[in-house]
Amino acid sequence: MSRLLKTTIAAGLVVAFGATIAHAQVTPEHLLKYRQGVMRAVAFQFGPLTGVAKGEAPWSPAMAQKAVNLAALSVIAGDVFSPASKDLANSDAKPEIWAKPDDFKMKMTAFQTETSKLGDLAKAGNVEAIKAQINAVGKACGACHDDFRVKR
Amino acid sequence: MSRLLKTTIAAGLVVAFGATIAHAQVTPEHLLKYRQGVMRAVAFQFGPLTGVAKGEAPWSPAMAQKAVNLAALSVIAGDVFSPASKDLANSDAKPEIWAKPDDFKMKMTAFQTETSKLGDLAKAGNVEAIKAQINAVGKACGACHDDFRVKR
Repeated sequence: MSRLLKTTIAAGLVVAFGATIAHAQVTPEHLLKYRQGVMRAVAFQFGPLTGVAKGEAPWSPAMAQKAVNLAALSVIAGDVFSPASKDLANSDAKPEIWAKPDDFKMKMTAFQTETSKLGDLAKAGNVEAIKAQINAVGKACGACHDDFRVKR
Repeated sequence: MSRLLKTTIAAGLVVAFGATIAHAQVTPEHLLKYRQGVMRAVAFQFGPLTGVAKGEAPWSPAMAQKAVNLAALSVIAGDVFSPASKDLANSDAKPEIWAKPDDFKMKMTAFQTETSKLGDLAKAGNVEAIKAQINAVGKACGACHDDFRVKR
């Protein structure tokens, strides 16, 4: 992360969160919480949606909102694997993310494309099409995790 | 969190993250990471935007994307203070969030309204209007933090 961006973010945090952290800096810990939090937020939207795909949960306005949230989060997910976050400790991100950036970008883009389609379908409301698209999103998640996420 | 929701989310996590966590449950730790991650993501969008409001950073397509992201995240922020997350340890959320739900909801809604306006303005591109709205968002952040976030 550039010094300018660091300073700008730090300044922004001051405005947003009060003078008590006036000297706050963006630390590796912040970057890690950002990444893991965004991915956690992805999982919290997607998890209930898989219940719909399996016929275990009904489609509802709340589920539609989760699909829309997921599409927005997938865009943000593209921001949380910056080279500045390459060497974070306690991360499940494999070094291949930065060693094979084109391949990673292709898989991240596929995830974003599938969630975008799901968000659009959610607004239209054809439940069978939605179920199929939830599975397509799941495959895009898995394709990226297979190559770029440490197995636990 | 209801048992059904818990099971549904756990099932979803299995699909999304592979059979290696087949017996995963949503723990208080997951809920806390979700909340803190979403709020961290809010800060990572908003921080750079305050640089624009102060004339320290130029308006750009990347900044417009952050404004759109922020509007989406504000909707998700409304989901991360569920009563199920009331008793999480290591949280800066004050108990007043759940003791005064109407007041909290009013302030959360104000935050969502202001970010939604910012997202719309970002697409339109009038920089002076955008700067004013960034400040309006900052005030909405602060109004809620003043009452409902532990001071550090």
